[in-house]
Amino acid sequence: MSQTTTASTPANGTSARAVGAHAPDGPLGPLEIQRRAVGPKDVPIDIRFCGICHSDIHFARGEWGGIPYPAVPGHEITGVVAEVGAEVTTFATGDRVGVGCMVNSCRECENCEAGNEQYCLAGNTQTYGSKDRDGTVTYGGYSDHVVVDEDFVLRIPDGLELDAAAPLLCAGITTYSPLRHWNAGPGKRVAVVGLGGLGHMAVKIAHALGAEVTVLSQSLRKREDGLKLGASAYHATSDEDTFTELAGRFDLIINTVSARIDIGRFLSLLRTDGALVNVGAPPEPLPVPVFALIPQRRTFAGSAIGGIRETQEMLDFCAEHGIAADIEVISAGQVNEAWERVLASDVRYRFVIDNATL
Amino acid sequence: MSQTTTASTPANGTSARAVGAHAPDGPLGPLEIQRRAVGPKDVPIDIRFCGICHSDIHFARGEWGGIPYPAVPGHEITGVVAEVGAEVTTFATGDRVGVGCMVNSCRECENCEAGNEQYCLAGNTQTYGSKDRDGTVTYGGYSDHVVVDEDFVLRIPDGLELDAAAPLLCAGITTYSPLRHWNAGPGKRVAVVGLGGLGHMAVKIAHALGAEVTVLSQSLRKREDGLKLGASAYHATSDEDTFTELAGRFDLIINTVSARIDIGRFLSLLRTDGALVNVGAPPEPLPVPVFALIPQRRTFAGSAIGGIRETQEMLDFCAEHGIAADIEVISAGQVNEAWERVLASDVRYRFVIDNATL
Repeated sequence: MSQTTTASTPANGTSARAVGAHAPDGPLGPLEIQRRAVGPKDVPIDIRFCGICHSDIHFARGEWGGIPYPAVPGHEITGVVAEVGAEVTTFATGDRVGVGCMVNSCRECENCEAGNEQYCLAGNTQTYGSKDRDGTVTYGGYSDHVVVDEDFVLRIPDGLELDAAAPLLCAGITTYSPLRHWNAGPGKRVAVVGLGGLGHMAVKIAHALGAEVTVLSQSLRKREDGLKLGASAYHATSDEDTFTELAGRFDLIINTVSARIDIGRFLSLLRTDGALVNVGAPPEPLPVPVFALIPQRRTFAGSAIGGIRETQEMLDFCAEHGIAADIEVISAGQVNEAWERVLASDVRYRFVIDNATL
Repeated sequence: MSQTTTASTPANGTSARAVGAHAPDGPLGPLEIQRRAVGPKDVPIDIRFCGICHSDIHFARGEWGGIPYPAVPGHEITGVVAEVGAEVTTFATGDRVGVGCMVNSCRECENCEAGNEQYCLAGNTQTYGSKDRDGTVTYGGYSDHVVVDEDFVLRIPDGLELDAAAPLLCAGITTYSPLRHWNAGPGKRVAVVGLGGLGHMAVKIAHALGAEVTVLSQSLRKREDGLKLGASAYHATSDEDTFTELAGRFDLIINTVSARIDIGRFLSLLRTDGALVNVGAPPEPLPVPVFALIPQRRTFAGSAIGGIRETQEMLDFCAEHGIAADIEVISAGQVNEAWERVLASDVRYRFVIDNATL
């Protein structure tokens, strides 16, 4: 990463160091980007850490649709408030803060009014690759600083370290929200499919919520980890017996796997009125046997991150229960290598960039 | 139907006239079957009317798995109590009663105990083609009488005619149950996909529950009917504009179509937290795009009939609101022809056999 290129961006802002993609198929490299000028409601944040999410890779490689390049991913951001805009009331310089997957929304629709900005009917502004309400394109957290409206900034509670807290902003809230929505708690049996970045957070949170947690993974390779994270059982989905033994057992299954899985077999593990909730989205439609839904009134659902209020609730919950992500901290120069390891599922359980190395 | 065959069945019962299938691919014909001897909790019922459900055809033709022949379909039964077993407390001779899709269940599992016998964990005993708890095979309502445990007999309220009430025992409860479970009512927008036997009941019931009802049908052919039944809007799914115009509109979609439809397009019509509920089951899995579920936390679900208590509630609700099925009464000799017309969707909206013609 010897050569730094400069992205063309609006004037009047500040220059920021970043690592990003210049094209869908090349490696990431150093970039200089412009952050917008600090508005009255804005909070400029010195980014200390940024988690690496599988979505970053899909995005930067254009696998979820064409994007403008250069592109800077990263939506698991923690840092410290550098200064505050004239009308900011919630934060002060020096506060420990976080930014997740969105940095704006319409603020007027019924979902925004209900605090469900993740389901903004006009479409929320994503932390990277989105056109913001002011017309600028957003750049993510693989960067030294970011400017975000205070309404989309989260407070990191004292009990959480900034590095291990970073993945909570996506992996944490993406699993916390459906666990809460579908009432995971005491007396409920929850299965988590896949023990990766999202899965390991789902296990920790479901356990902390008081549910009985089972991990369903391709093999038993990570069994010891799973039990340590809070699962009381761990089964291999490559073992036929798993599906007979656990038939009709779970109230809720959180599927963190984006690859194509046999949905019908997993639906058969649900009890009456149980829900299988996908938080990962495979690009191709999944074949769903309706005969697996009807006889026990089962549901197949999807869930996206969480609202801002709910994300703060999740951070406070994690601090209270001493939960954060299991991480491997890397330097900015290791991002390409880390992406390859993410694609090979070779991380326990989240890479976090030390943004001081940018 | 000149030749009557006699099915081999247990002794000690009574002989019954019936119409049934001798093989998966032949026409229905007259049969003589044996009904079991009246036990202390049994209610022998003189069948007056029996609705023709599409399931009858799937069943008799072996399309849902191999079955023993001869087979007698029919699970939309109304009639009059002929006598009562020694310990029967709920019914008396002469009472107007009904029997739906099931005639027994384990009575011990948590679902049976909760009144959800339709989801009996041991599997409930279907009205036809099932092995009952006493080992006999059940025969349905295309017959002059039936013997049913009082716990699975429904009371037909005075306000309902026995002919038009018959389809409520399957088409009625199959739509009432999900409409209630997913809270159809004032302020809710409900769409009904398909205006056949189930669909026309879904429209009537959803309207009576106070919901705003839209019919989504392939063409506008039955538009006038739909509006008369209680829909306030009627759209053709063959018209591309339907899917843009109605995007994100509905809280609940009841899909009564058993054929393969494009689930992703129908999911796009749901608002945040909306549910698409299949009550018809296509034999092949339906491709579900997860990207249609995640962004608005939508669900795709299935629902089967309803419990006995809920079925009684539905009958009382229908009587109170002056609702029953729109029917075409036929004689037993017209059953084969009626089946052909059911397969051609040429009935408004349910055939009902006058069992006095058997």
